[in-house]
Amino acid sequence: MPFGYNGKILRVDLDRGSISIEEPDENVYCRYLGGGTFALYYLLKEFKPKSDPLGPENILVFIGSVISGTPAVGLSRFSAAAKSPLTNAFGEAEAGGWWIPELKFAGYDAVIIKGRANHPVYLWIHDGEAEIKDARHLWGKFTKETQEEIRKELRDEHIRIASIGPAGEKLVRVACILNELKHANGRTGLGAVMGSKNLKAIAVRGNKRMEVADEEAVRRITKWLRDTYEEPYFSIGNLGTARVTVMLSEQGILPTFNFRQGSFEGAEAISGETMSKTILVRRGTCYGCFIRCKREVRVTEPYLVDPIYGGPEYETVAAFGSMCGIDNLKAISWANQLCNAYGLDTISTGGLISFAMECYENDILKSTDTGGLDLRFGNVEAMIKMVEMIGKREGLGDLLADGMSLAARKLGKGAEGFAMHVKGMPLPFHEPRGKVGVGIGYAVSPTGPDHMEFPHDPFWATDAGISLLRPLGILEPVDVFDLGPKKVRLFVYLQQYWDLLNSLGICMFTAKPFGPHTFNEIVDYVKAVTGWETSLFDLLKVGERHANMARIFNLREGLTSKDDILPERLFQPMEGGTLKGKKIDQEEFLKAIKTYYQMMGWDPESGVPKKEKLAELDLDWLIDYAPSLFS
Amino acid sequence: MPFGYNGKILRVDLDRGSISIEEPDENVYCRYLGGGTFALYYLLKEFKPKSDPLGPENILVFIGSVISGTPAVGLSRFSAAAKSPLTNAFGEAEAGGWWIPELKFAGYDAVIIKGRANHPVYLWIHDGEAEIKDARHLWGKFTKETQEEIRKELRDEHIRIASIGPAGEKLVRVACILNELKHANGRTGLGAVMGSKNLKAIAVRGNKRMEVADEEAVRRITKWLRDTYEEPYFSIGNLGTARVTVMLSEQGILPTFNFRQGSFEGAEAISGETMSKTILVRRGTCYGCFIRCKREVRVTEPYLVDPIYGGPEYETVAAFGSMCGIDNLKAISWANQLCNAYGLDTISTGGLISFAMECYENDILKSTDTGGLDLRFGNVEAMIKMVEMIGKREGLGDLLADGMSLAARKLGKGAEGFAMHVKGMPLPFHEPRGKVGVGIGYAVSPTGPDHMEFPHDPFWATDAGISLLRPLGILEPVDVFDLGPKKVRLFVYLQQYWDLLNSLGICMFTAKPFGPHTFNEIVDYVKAVTGWETSLFDLLKVGERHANMARIFNLREGLTSKDDILPERLFQPMEGGTLKGKKIDQEEFLKAIKTYYQMMGWDPESGVPKKEKLAELDLDWLIDYAPSLFS
Repeated sequence: MPFGYNGKILRVDLDRGSISIEEPDENVYCRYLGGGTFALYYLLKEFKPKSDPLGPENILVFIGSVISGTPAVGLSRFSAAAKSPLTNAFGEAEAGGWWIPELKFAGYDAVIIKGRANHPVYLWIHDGEAEIKDARHLWGKFTKETQEEIRKELRDEHIRIASIGPAGEKLVRVACILNELKHANGRTGLGAVMGSKNLKAIAVRGNKRMEVADEEAVRRITKWLRDTYEEPYFSIGNLGTARVTVMLSEQGILPTFNFRQGSFEGAEAISGETMSKTILVRRGTCYGCFIRCKREVRVTEPYLVDPIYGGPEYETVAAFGSMCGIDNLKAISWANQLCNAYGLDTISTGGLISFAMECYENDILKSTDTGGLDLRFGNVEAMIKMVEMIGKREGLGDLLADGMSLAARKLGKGAEGFAMHVKGMPLPFHEPRGKVGVGIGYAVSPTGPDHMEFPHDPFWATDAGISLLRPLGILEPVDVFDLGPKKVRLFVYLQQYWDLLNSLGICMFTAKPFGPHTFNEIVDYVKAVTGWETSLFDLLKVGERHANMARIFNLREGLTSKDDILPERLFQPMEGGTLKGKKIDQEEFLKAIKTYYQMMGWDPESGVPKKEKLAELDLDWLIDYAPSLFS
Repeated sequence: MPFGYNGKILRVDLDRGSISIEEPDENVYCRYLGGGTFALYYLLKEFKPKSDPLGPENILVFIGSVISGTPAVGLSRFSAAAKSPLTNAFGEAEAGGWWIPELKFAGYDAVIIKGRANHPVYLWIHDGEAEIKDARHLWGKFTKETQEEIRKELRDEHIRIASIGPAGEKLVRVACILNELKHANGRTGLGAVMGSKNLKAIAVRGNKRMEVADEEAVRRITKWLRDTYEEPYFSIGNLGTARVTVMLSEQGILPTFNFRQGSFEGAEAISGETMSKTILVRRGTCYGCFIRCKREVRVTEPYLVDPIYGGPEYETVAAFGSMCGIDNLKAISWANQLCNAYGLDTISTGGLISFAMECYENDILKSTDTGGLDLRFGNVEAMIKMVEMIGKREGLGDLLADGMSLAARKLGKGAEGFAMHVKGMPLPFHEPRGKVGVGIGYAVSPTGPDHMEFPHDPFWATDAGISLLRPLGILEPVDVFDLGPKKVRLFVYLQQYWDLLNSLGICMFTAKPFGPHTFNEIVDYVKAVTGWETSLFDLLKVGERHANMARIFNLREGLTSKDDILPERLFQPMEGGTLKGKKIDQEEFLKAIKTYYQMMGWDPESGVPKKEKLAELDLDWLIDYAPSLFS
């Protein structure tokens, strides 16, 4: 009997309405651990290349890890993964909450869904059992009503539900999946994949507890994590992730007015501090976490914001705030709630609206296109309206619901110059011109621009910061503007580290540089839970596997090194803010990308992983699944 | 004040007769640790490329590590390093004994010697002091007399002395350095480098003890290593390294008659078991080691073998036994003593004699060349005589003393076909046709064919063996005859591991798969001693640094990927023994070498490390020291 995990994954075939159980070999768990890496193992084997991401051929995976559901802080995260309908590449998004521990307690490590049900259904997984249930009565409902009705009909208030809202049903390509109404598998449009399968929700409940190999060590480490944790200056426990808003604005790296500038006059008004003083009713949290970074806010007028939907994270504040030129925290909270009710990714949605605003101000969009909306930056009501229009695919919202790349192409007239996306996915709100490693991350991240690809440059620009990387053997700080090989190396190692956290389902806010988990303690914890004689060397190889597998997936879908780019604007001087005039040197950037390929063991031109690298990582089986890349 | 090391290295300039102390930055210790890696740091910076290895420009380094001299088992090893006069490449050899702990107790981590004294001298290092002393009276003396005289004149029986014998003085290119008369820095001819500098010996004595960061952890791990150690079947504590002789012969991989066959009829007679039953008087050992694998043998007739010179290791048994067709353990012990007295590497010396025997049997050498010696395989007296002739550079010995490559070229008439060497250095006695990873190691090892480049294939061909590599993430056994990418990966990782042991001065016989040290415990021990928050990831990068630095050193000396070869015989069927008919497939072998380059991050054709790999390893400073490789 394995320790830490169940050794069972649930296979659901919605075409046939059948369910089966698979028991992967222990070595599969050792090599892939969980998260995107484990998902990629199945996607690469079973997804028919270049199939329609919104067709029944797409495979949707929900997976935690070999340690999720055990007691240490921060093990609440899981990945949803499939081919993305937004990027047409590897799609993956992580969420916290309570869903994945509950799935593990129900006896499964993962759920893999194929096909398309012939009418709306939901999955009900409980104590080793699983059923496909009718969801016709839930179709069209917001996430809150969906959750309420499922709990009511299954007569259990403690059921954990991951569901889509109307946006996912309507195949909005920036739709997300939510559990507990506020924990989102946000990016890459996986809500639309779920919708395309006529799958409204997955409800889980279990009473099992996870066995661990060394109870005493698990208890000791869990306690140590709690006892030694001190909230650092940049931590987000007390004031939520939005606590960074003012700091970023002062540093000139708060994306504002669609990345035209990096400081926002209204930063203070939309900050975590202001939120705490005004609308916050509770600090929310996830399974087993004492940091409690989540927000629960209440607004009674002019919008009715219900704390059950949580509250805005930093990304959401920037999305609907600085990006749209809006300094109204109540409106931002309402937009957040709309996104959580409709099942929309706040980052992509805010990015799309900001893009539309710039198009509008440049006469690329006219009021005839917007249904009369005066879509200027700063227009609160227009922003709110646009969220709903995207969620419903109404009017201009229908165009935007197909994603930024397609929308910009359809609009023409220079709209592409305002389209701040990579691989079709809108940028999250971290300004690469002020921390250039973020630019590398945006360009090469297999899931499109991803602020969670690695912890950002400023952490490693000081002696105190770099000392956290001692276990990686990095001994000297690297400047935030440095795009040379030392920055690339930092990125390569940290990408492996962050991909490892992803594979283990560890919340990044609970790991260094943010939280209590350290490199070496993570190793000790995985050992204690699984009984495996692992090491940091071994675990970081899993992170490296993730990057290589995702790369192969994308190349097989037809992406090339030409897709590892940045929007043109980032090579132009910033128009305002503290860093006005700063830009990324394009030549240096292109060189950094090649350096990245080389350091990864990939061909420096094509970015195709070398066979030898794949063999080193025990990934040579992939060659048979993407033969044309290696012929 | 650093923990585990002194932070001081001794610089000796024999041209000027001056001594100085250098205090390297802590980061130098972190990145290079010690051993060959630390030595290469200085050689790459200070050795003038392509200088004569026997000229005053050569730089001779003696170095332990940041943990040598602390209490755990197996920390007795140190490296001597310089440009090799045998391979004209990076020369390095490790020895155990008591010398390096004593140097650390005397206050220094390393000794770096340049120039050439104008008459024989020795170094006397004691309690932070250092002197260059006259050694004219010691010149020409055997190691034993040298040791006795130095101890007498310095009036301290506990002084530890590393010295050369007459062979080093005469610049025999297979001369070694010995401490305590029996612990040899054996290979790559460093005794000749010492001789070329007119440096007879380095005597050390100190009373300091090394401070460690975490006394309690050091004590706990030291005790754990002792308490949990159980001698495994292949271990060499009880019966010495020669215990493998019969087993290797039965498996067909005991090099016999100059690698013509792999089984030897007389194996039993020259085995560790026979040694124990007949001539062994004591099990010897090194500083702090409870395994006691060293032999001390006594023979009274027909040779007078003194236990003070130790006893033959497996390599020596094979060198003068199976390789020369000799089943006489007394004669082998005498040859061993002659080597230790003259200061000759037993492996190279035995290899040279075996080569000469095959030349003699094929009429390439005639009795006029041998001074009348009937140099047939199996002729005991001829073998003994040849050892002395090489040590004294007499007759045919003078030719052989210049190394196998030169000797074969001078002899012509097909002698090169019998010359079992790589890069000019005779092969040690492990048969690559029966464990093909050894072939990769022989070919690519920067110091010439080296059986200590990694633990050999048979250990990893079973589930029990491979389970030891769990911390490296290697989960499946690899067959001994497999030359594919999985074998190369095994080699790459294990080379890093073995290079790490070298950099830490850990005796390989005290580490897995032989001894008690495990991957993860080594990390814990280094942490406990130094206080550094290191990891297996970080430490293996030091091993990777070693391979890259040595590679650059060699390329800078003019070696190319064409030097990463094997003697032609290994691609031919074995002529006898259990594995008769087995050969290495040349095409597979060449492919494996390319795979090795690729996995190392080197150019697959030239084998030049890529700039990006160097930057990753913080070795980009090397580019300035070998600009032509990177232009």
